[in-house]
Amino acid sequence: MKNAVGREIPVGIAGYNIAPYQGPWSCIPSRQASGGKCINVSASEKVLKSIDAAIDAVGLRDGMTISFHHHLRNGDFVMKLVVDAIARKGIRGLKVAASSLSAVQDAIMPHLEAGVIVAIDTSGIRGEIGKFVSAGKLPNPVMIRTHGGRARAVESGELPIDVAFIGAPACDRYGNINGVDGPAACGSLGYAIVDAACAEKVVAITDNLLDYPLQRISIPQTQVDFIVKVDSIGNPQGISTGSLRISTNPQELLISQYAATAIEYSGYFRNNFSLQLGSGGPSLSAAKFIKEKMQAKGITAAFGVGGITGIFVEMMEEGLVNLLFDAQSFDSRAIQSLRQNPRHLEMSASYYASPGTCGPIVNHVDAVILSATEVDINFNANVLTGSNGKLMGAPGGHPDTAAGSNLCIVALPLVRKNFPVIRESVHTIVTPGETVDVIVTDRGVAINPLRKDLIYNLKDSGLPIMQIEDLQRLAYEITGTPGPKPAGGEIVGLVEYRDGTIIDVIRKMG
Amino acid sequence: MKNAVGREIPVGIAGYNIAPYQGPWSCIPSRQASGGKCINVSASEKVLKSIDAAIDAVGLRDGMTISFHHHLRNGDFVMKLVVDAIARKGIRGLKVAASSLSAVQDAIMPHLEAGVIVAIDTSGIRGEIGKFVSAGKLPNPVMIRTHGGRARAVESGELPIDVAFIGAPACDRYGNINGVDGPAACGSLGYAIVDAACAEKVVAITDNLLDYPLQRISIPQTQVDFIVKVDSIGNPQGISTGSLRISTNPQELLISQYAATAIEYSGYFRNNFSLQLGSGGPSLSAAKFIKEKMQAKGITAAFGVGGITGIFVEMMEEGLVNLLFDAQSFDSRAIQSLRQNPRHLEMSASYYASPGTCGPIVNHVDAVILSATEVDINFNANVLTGSNGKLMGAPGGHPDTAAGSNLCIVALPLVRKNFPVIRESVHTIVTPGETVDVIVTDRGVAINPLRKDLIYNLKDSGLPIMQIEDLQRLAYEITGTPGPKPAGGEIVGLVEYRDGTIIDVIRKMG
Repeated sequence: MKNAVGREIPVGIAGYNIAPYQGPWSCIPSRQASGGKCINVSASEKVLKSIDAAIDAVGLRDGMTISFHHHLRNGDFVMKLVVDAIARKGIRGLKVAASSLSAVQDAIMPHLEAGVIVAIDTSGIRGEIGKFVSAGKLPNPVMIRTHGGRARAVESGELPIDVAFIGAPACDRYGNINGVDGPAACGSLGYAIVDAACAEKVVAITDNLLDYPLQRISIPQTQVDFIVKVDSIGNPQGISTGSLRISTNPQELLISQYAATAIEYSGYFRNNFSLQLGSGGPSLSAAKFIKEKMQAKGITAAFGVGGITGIFVEMMEEGLVNLLFDAQSFDSRAIQSLRQNPRHLEMSASYYASPGTCGPIVNHVDAVILSATEVDINFNANVLTGSNGKLMGAPGGHPDTAAGSNLCIVALPLVRKNFPVIRESVHTIVTPGETVDVIVTDRGVAINPLRKDLIYNLKDSGLPIMQIEDLQRLAYEITGTPGPKPAGGEIVGLVEYRDGTIIDVIRKMG
Repeated sequence: MKNAVGREIPVGIAGYNIAPYQGPWSCIPSRQASGGKCINVSASEKVLKSIDAAIDAVGLRDGMTISFHHHLRNGDFVMKLVVDAIARKGIRGLKVAASSLSAVQDAIMPHLEAGVIVAIDTSGIRGEIGKFVSAGKLPNPVMIRTHGGRARAVESGELPIDVAFIGAPACDRYGNINGVDGPAACGSLGYAIVDAACAEKVVAITDNLLDYPLQRISIPQTQVDFIVKVDSIGNPQGISTGSLRISTNPQELLISQYAATAIEYSGYFRNNFSLQLGSGGPSLSAAKFIKEKMQAKGITAAFGVGGITGIFVEMMEEGLVNLLFDAQSFDSRAIQSLRQNPRHLEMSASYYASPGTCGPIVNHVDAVILSATEVDINFNANVLTGSNGKLMGAPGGHPDTAAGSNLCIVALPLVRKNFPVIRESVHTIVTPGETVDVIVTDRGVAINPLRKDLIYNLKDSGLPIMQIEDLQRLAYEITGTPGPKPAGGEIVGLVEYRDGTIIDVIRKMG
């Protein structure tokens, strides 16, 4: 048959699926918002007047999955703005797939109660939403994922996202986005990068709409369908703390000192080692001690990974760390550094931690210091619930970096508020004991018996090393033996291990 | 049932696909080269001893599709090294999906003749391979794609790649890659970025294996399965010319001057306009005239797009162009600039030109100057074959930017070696006439009648404007009326338009 330019085109050649040409703008390939000249004379089609208009434009309807990133943390306005607008339209039965939920998201509680949202997929869950889930009021079990596991699930299609709503600190008029410029700058967009690449439709919500094209691009225009300008996407005070302070609590300093010493003697403390530090107290304080040890021995690190904080930036600026890989910027100094320093690199959650790739960067971390709500005599760690089962935390990258790193240290006090946190069995297993190498407390240090190399290396460290069971007994001596784990009711949540299997469940409480 | 940490896991919850946890490294998600601690103690597993070992490791077998990028252009050693190794193993019946084929790839002719390669998917085709295809000797019709169309086909799964072999000017021991460092630096890796993201397996071939981690990353470790170190991936002389020279041919200078004047009067020559210039003679010479006009009027461009050459870099360095977006670096000055200048940005072929995205950058190009082997009175352009049907070129980004830009100028001499290049009908339609706005020759300028705005704007430009039919008659007066288009035999190739439809076919010659 003849095509639109009059050429004879065969329609049947074995092995080829042949469609004759119909004109330069007649055939719209899938996921194509704009085909060319007919549209490109102005970029304004992507910029819509309101979130309502964007909801219409993407065809959002009952039962779909919408996603959000949590880089704006406790300052985020985007989720509430979007879900309020969806609710006003009468759309119901949605799944919210969030990279995490902060306390600020309690603002969407009315929409959980009203059935606008009936399912949640997240890393963290706490506050009123946590109570709602624990009370068995969400119609579907909540799915708890690690940062790497979520990236794996999104990229593999296991967690399909219909519409990603992306809070964009800087966005040009054709959808190029970054997180470092603007009044609500949050730094890295590591979680959002995965959603933008994989969602069926992407809507950028920005309070900083800029002329085309952006110089610095973290999420490209090719992935962004529509843009909505709002007054503000977030409260800077809630997005980042000014700068995280190192503890002056002597117990916490002792734990941090032990953790730093464990690294020093582990065998991994050598030139060009790599380090991950979280934003928790022990990690931050340990950074100070590690820094002193590095300076004393003249050792520098090839790279740091995180969750990046100001103290890590300081180490880079002082020449102690060569490169920083940043999936999430925790404070204003980290945000500023990511903006300015070419040795401070943004990475996606997939690059950070997904086990579904050819190898995330956690596989190359030598030493990481993590916290936990409780650990048990099998070295299992709980970072999601309290010992009573209350939802109050997030796996985050904990299981990912524990599995990837050469030396995973969990640092925590032996006892918190007269409750033992070294137990016979944790309430919720989030990070399996095989991946936790050393547990550091203020009263003693336990080494995983699987790690004979570490037992050998740390024997002259001067650390108060003991068996994990002895630590547990010591804790129980102080607090008394805790009662049995509450049985709980029906299943209200699933705790996914990073590889997609289910490592534990969350049951109805009370 | 109980999972590996002893927790009771339900196996049937409606809407959830539940697999109980089996241990931290037991379950390997798809496309996972390395799951964690068991492997990550050393990165050396990705680095294999030889290309032969990589072929074994990826499980390459008869009938698969292997891909290559052409950023090493006529200096590329990678394709020959890989296909030689494949042939030695007795594997046959492969499809080669190359972003383009340069003359140097004639080195794989023996493998076409022997049936190691039985299908080709490419933008450019020329030399001995072109003759082989034209003679009907390839068992399957060759598929010719545009740069944007190839990105669309790869990203949509229409062109599935089993193994991408990626020539890597710089590669660390865990597979992070860039194109700007090393003896075979080629600059942008725009085509390879798409293949690495979408291929089932990715093998990096490098002559510059570096310590982990690379600071500058164009292709991430998460996409690279294996790495092979070879002596050399390419000859720098063939990769880039030292610097492209501007013509001194008076006919070419006249054409370039006309093209620059057409831009000046088009209505798009205003502050913050955008410009694409190719590597062809008319584009390069026109750059000089455009530059003078910009300086004279005090106009600067928001960005430039390409195929980037030294003259474009010069314009950026002089402050005439704010940003450069680079899918392919044409000369050593462009490569150096991409390495050093943060306003010189690398982009993927998808970002450049794919119509399957939410909008590639070509949609925002105001003016582009292109060349062609011939054009016709319907403004159709041929950039693939001669008027006699001989395979000698490549669509490249020609149809993409013609469709995307506001002003597409095709600049060429009226007559080449006594053959008319303005014809009643081109031999092969690659770029449809509706997307070509102005045809500029040394003897006159024709404006597409669809563009009444341009006809109006250019009336006072002083350009020798005439009807396209008059240009064609003028050409025929000089050369005599050419004979009819050779009918050709069976179909040996398909010319795909960027949207996936077939715009023309290539027939057996002689």
